[in-house]
Amino acid sequence: MHPIRLGLVGYGKIAQDQHVPAIHASDRFELVAVATLGQRCPGVPNFSSLAELLAEGPAVDAIAFCTPPQGRFALVEQALKAGKHVLVEKPPCSTLGEALALIDEVNAAGVSGLFAWHSRFAPGVRNAVQWLEGKTLKQVRIDWKEQVRKWHPGQAWIWQAGGLGVFDPGINALSIVTELLPRALFVESANLSVPSNCQSPIAASLQMRSGENVQVVAELDFDHSVNEQWSIELHCDEGVMRLDAGGAQVSIDGVAQSVSEEGEYPAMYGHFARLIDAGKSDLDLQPLRIVADSFFVGSKETVAAFYE
Amino acid sequence: MHPIRLGLVGYGKIAQDQHVPAIHASDRFELVAVATLGQRCPGVPNFSSLAELLAEGPAVDAIAFCTPPQGRFALVEQALKAGKHVLVEKPPCSTLGEALALIDEVNAAGVSGLFAWHSRFAPGVRNAVQWLEGKTLKQVRIDWKEQVRKWHPGQAWIWQAGGLGVFDPGINALSIVTELLPRALFVESANLSVPSNCQSPIAASLQMRSGENVQVVAELDFDHSVNEQWSIELHCDEGVMRLDAGGAQVSIDGVAQSVSEEGEYPAMYGHFARLIDAGKSDLDLQPLRIVADSFFVGSKETVAAFYE
Repeated sequence: MHPIRLGLVGYGKIAQDQHVPAIHASDRFELVAVATLGQRCPGVPNFSSLAELLAEGPAVDAIAFCTPPQGRFALVEQALKAGKHVLVEKPPCSTLGEALALIDEVNAAGVSGLFAWHSRFAPGVRNAVQWLEGKTLKQVRIDWKEQVRKWHPGQAWIWQAGGLGVFDPGINALSIVTELLPRALFVESANLSVPSNCQSPIAASLQMRSGENVQVVAELDFDHSVNEQWSIELHCDEGVMRLDAGGAQVSIDGVAQSVSEEGEYPAMYGHFARLIDAGKSDLDLQPLRIVADSFFVGSKETVAAFYE
Repeated sequence: MHPIRLGLVGYGKIAQDQHVPAIHASDRFELVAVATLGQRCPGVPNFSSLAELLAEGPAVDAIAFCTPPQGRFALVEQALKAGKHVLVEKPPCSTLGEALALIDEVNAAGVSGLFAWHSRFAPGVRNAVQWLEGKTLKQVRIDWKEQVRKWHPGQAWIWQAGGLGVFDPGINALSIVTELLPRALFVESANLSVPSNCQSPIAASLQMRSGENVQVVAELDFDHSVNEQWSIELHCDEGVMRLDAGGAQVSIDGVAQSVSEEGEYPAMYGHFARLIDAGKSDLDLQPLRIVADSFFVGSKETVAAFYE
């Protein structure tokens, strides 16, 4: 098969740490150009904009978007108009309206699109999918607790209106759980703790349900220094599976399980290649929709100001 | 044609004031049963639940839902499982998740469904649709300003988490504007004023866009006693159309226009009958999605406590 010629837009931390290594390790993708206003990506031609890349760069088949969600919609539209396949980092857009429109536009363009919920490709998620088959799931408990000062130093945009606050990591947990549940996940109620000098929550407690019988609770904390945890417990009639470390580790009834050695981003790019080869798309809105519903129906409590 | 036998669930103020008179005036619908826990509807058999109505009542072809949006999802699912057409008062559900799932379930059931954005059937909206044809729309301005104490006495749920606050009336304006615009309407930014003792905004200022060239601004106020107004101005290169009184009155460049004499709810039930006859549905999520996006990306400011 011909390699899929890939252009990358936005060469920030996530592109450098995850996308480019995964692309280089892939036997299906070839990184041929980057559009960046900041640091230049070595080894390939760099352009100052997507428009310039598309007009003057080498031919590309697909574009991966690693710019912030604000402003991304118009960029993805440019790529779609040029007939390119698109991979869009999470969260795909800054509003549900844009994300819904993008789904229609990808389908109308007849290309392959992927909303890149990377945590769904954590090694343990594959174990969980297999383990859940034929079992009766009753309850899911998410604990996603980390120290924002350590993981997001200086990222003031997280706290502004339209920023996700604690949902920035929390949406990863929601992307895993929605991948595992056979039916849609609905927010029943939510409690959001918003620092007095911020617009986005620093902690959230969500009560959700899926179908009639599965209760899902999530405890998200962004100011948690000791014993950080990114865990999901799946309580079935038949036992308990626990994902830890964001899905990298798995245990069943307390017994550690072996997991795939393939990392999240390589597995995600493998999925993108299969979508392109099959002429399909994977544009799931659920994680973003659950966040928006949490803001919509959530009870907001003002808490102490946040200072880095 | 046979009349469409209709059951009504929830016999509160909106059912009594609007639905039942519109159904009685219709030559396509026949009201055959009502499910209500409160006041009984005269002239038809009354049941204490939808389940009882479906099991023991006269045969029905369609169900109209006039209960509050909280809890409505499970009720509509019951009707769909029984193969009934459904008309769902606005807003259709309490979350976007439920509304999206309902769209899928209506389509899977092979029945006709209508999310009943009644303001779209205001007489002047038909004038606006015709007037806009071939014109170049540049800007839309919504002013939706009323006194909540007058229109919603004692309705504490409006202010609770999940309540719409000023969006309860404002969603009507959004339903009209989205009906008139050829492209999706996106929230760019929003300012929400939330009373210190409430969870929902008492005022909102929205900056939106549709396509690349149409700017839409909305000023919503729920504590406005003098000169209440429910107006939408459509600014085109060719002139200005103004809808007043929630779409009941129309002027072009200041000159009053004549409008249809058919009221909102009779026109809406006519639309529902045509959908059923044609085997189609009209399940537009946009107004609710815009409200949710406004909560999601909006900047919240705490304002003086609200007391009725």
